Amino acid sequence: MYLTILGGGSWGTALAQVLSYNFEKVYIWDIDKQVLKDIQEYHQNKKYHPNVMLAHNIIPIEDIQEATNIGDIIVVAIPSQFVRQTLSNVKIEKEKPIISASKGIEIESLKLMSQVIEKSLNLDLKYIFALSGPSFAKEVIMGLPTAVVLAGDTRLGKDLQKILSTKTFRVYLSDDVVGAEVGGSVKNVIAIACGISDGLGFGNNARASLITRGLYEISKIVKEFGGNPQTVYGLSGLGDLILTATGDLSRNRKFGILIGQGYNVEDAIKEIGQIVEGYTTVKALNNLVKEKNIDLPISQMVYKVVYEGLDPKLAAEMLMIRDLKSEF
Amino acid sequence: MYLTILGGGSWGTALAQVLSYNFEKVYIWDIDKQVLKDIQEYHQNKKYHPNVMLAHNIIPIEDIQEATNIGDIIVVAIPSQFVRQTLSNVKIEKEKPIISASKGIEIESLKLMSQVIEKSLNLDLKYIFALSGPSFAKEVIMGLPTAVVLAGDTRLGKDLQKILSTKTFRVYLSDDVVGAEVGGSVKNVIAIACGISDGLGFGNNARASLITRGLYEISKIVKEFGGNPQTVYGLSGLGDLILTATGDLSRNRKFGILIGQGYNVEDAIKEIGQIVEGYTTVKALNNLVKEKNIDLPISQMVYKVVYEGLDPKLAAEMLMIRDLKSEF
Repeated sequence: MYLTILGGGSWGTALAQVLSYNFEKVYIWDIDKQVLKDIQEYHQNKKYHPNVMLAHNIIPIEDIQEATNIGDIIVVAIPSQFVRQTLSNVKIEKEKPIISASKGIEIESLKLMSQVIEKSLNLDLKYIFALSGPSFAKEVIMGLPTAVVLAGDTRLGKDLQKILSTKTFRVYLSDDVVGAEVGGSVKNVIAIACGISDGLGFGNNARASLITRGLYEISKIVKEFGGNPQTVYGLSGLGDLILTATGDLSRNRKFGILIGQGYNVEDAIKEIGQIVEGYTTVKALNNLVKEKNIDLPISQMVYKVVYEGLDPKLAAEMLMIRDLKSEF
Repeated sequence: MYLTILGGGSWGTALAQVLSYNFEKVYIWDIDKQVLKDIQEYHQNKKYHPNVMLAHNIIPIEDIQEATNIGDIIVVAIPSQFVRQTLSNVKIEKEKPIISASKGIEIESLKLMSQVIEKSLNLDLKYIFALSGPSFAKEVIMGLPTAVVLAGDTRLGKDLQKILSTKTFRVYLSDDVVGAEVGGSVKNVIAIACGISDGLGFGNNARASLITRGLYEISKIVKEFGGNPQTVYGLSGLGDLILTATGDLSRNRKFGILIGQGYNVEDAIKEIGQIVEGYTTVKALNNLVKEKNIDLPISQMVYKVVYEGLDPKLAAEMLMIRDLKSEF
């Protein structure tokens, strides 16, 4: 069986490596020809995982249409804002399973990645899955134990689950694509809030309650999108949020820390030097709040701090002295 | 209004300090006369918070009956295994609110603290509350922002919520005492599992999924005890678990780390030098598993590692290769 991975970034490459044990061949396509050349010549992705030797059966491929033709299963691991345009000229057989490993919400359309893929490829949603969960690529590629969730049609998903699971990579099933995708995307906003709290020197108690209240906030958004709020409490929501909000490898948390320490937004983004997904997602959430009139206190505070210049310390205090409430 | 706190340990003292702003007087009783003497003479609890000056209206009191008579509200902050015997000779008026800030399950009886208090004091459960949530005492006493949950009769609880909330200490309401107490207790077992994973060098992905799957396990236990599984996803469950499983101040996590690094149980306990609550709780859970035939894979693995000498690395691998499942 052949696997095709679209996107030879940090996550796509890690997935190729861990899944190389279960597939005869793993094809990787990327827009960056140098990445493909390095894999061809050195069995290395020098840009994203410079110190890792890739398995022999990982094969670079330059033509995206050829890549999608040859794979029995297609994984999409392209940065979310490029998914639509990348797939717009590709044709994929109707019944070939597509697994989205890209996380994010399109800002303008408020569409999830599975919806973008469905639209771009003119496919049946039944064959589209989302793979999500707490998975720093650097740890997955080292073979450290990782558990993720595959969300989609569970009948078809059962077979995929088997072929995607290894001794170090445990795949759980879920039937809630929307819930998995919203969790994977919105968690970045809560991670910024946690970073701000850390940057202000607020300690572990504050961070733990921000994560908890933030997760409740995510569950309200999942409901709004028509997903199952329970999904939020699984690997794609809670699990990924814990990773992003407490782990040191997260850009979103780092961004928040800098803001909490008094950096302005431009300098913080410059300092990080990569895309901070949560910074755009919080803008999408602000549109959602305006449209749907739902109460998202933490996201709104983050929005006010990073887009309207509200003092982070004041924002934190405002969160603390809101009307006293019941927990749920 | 007067508040009485039974137990001048780390948590009881922190509560006294933060609540001293809302009460005319806060009385502290403790079995250790030296602690009371230090508070009287130096306004300090030298044993637990050596560098903190306590508020002037915190007053030590030697007689436990006198202490419970004078307070309009009683907080119980005694180590869980001593609650029953400490309260056995005390009489409290029927309608005085009692707030349990002690966390734990009685090993033999499998009783929660609210049940132990009800029994010992011959009270109506209606007046018994549980206060729980992510709250390292050292941070609360410094005035760092903290959010907790007060679980109990919500009508009576509304007034308590107001009088217990300050600018830095935010109290949410819940009607589920059982859920709050099970969460606060069982989280220690999951924290040990996370520590073991950290000690084995397993990384952030593994820890995040242990927390997530562990929380699902706690929700099954809450159901078994007759509580509301949703409570687990609030501050007293998820919030406290995140704190205990990722924060550096947690004894249970430290114990797990040592085990993961190859210490035997006796040496690990000696190294920590204090009670490791999760070590006893996991024994209670093992009894529960035998009695009720529920599936608690993480708790069972911890039990096998700390009581039956199973190799932690092997235990972790066994968790990874279990039958593939749906997430919920």
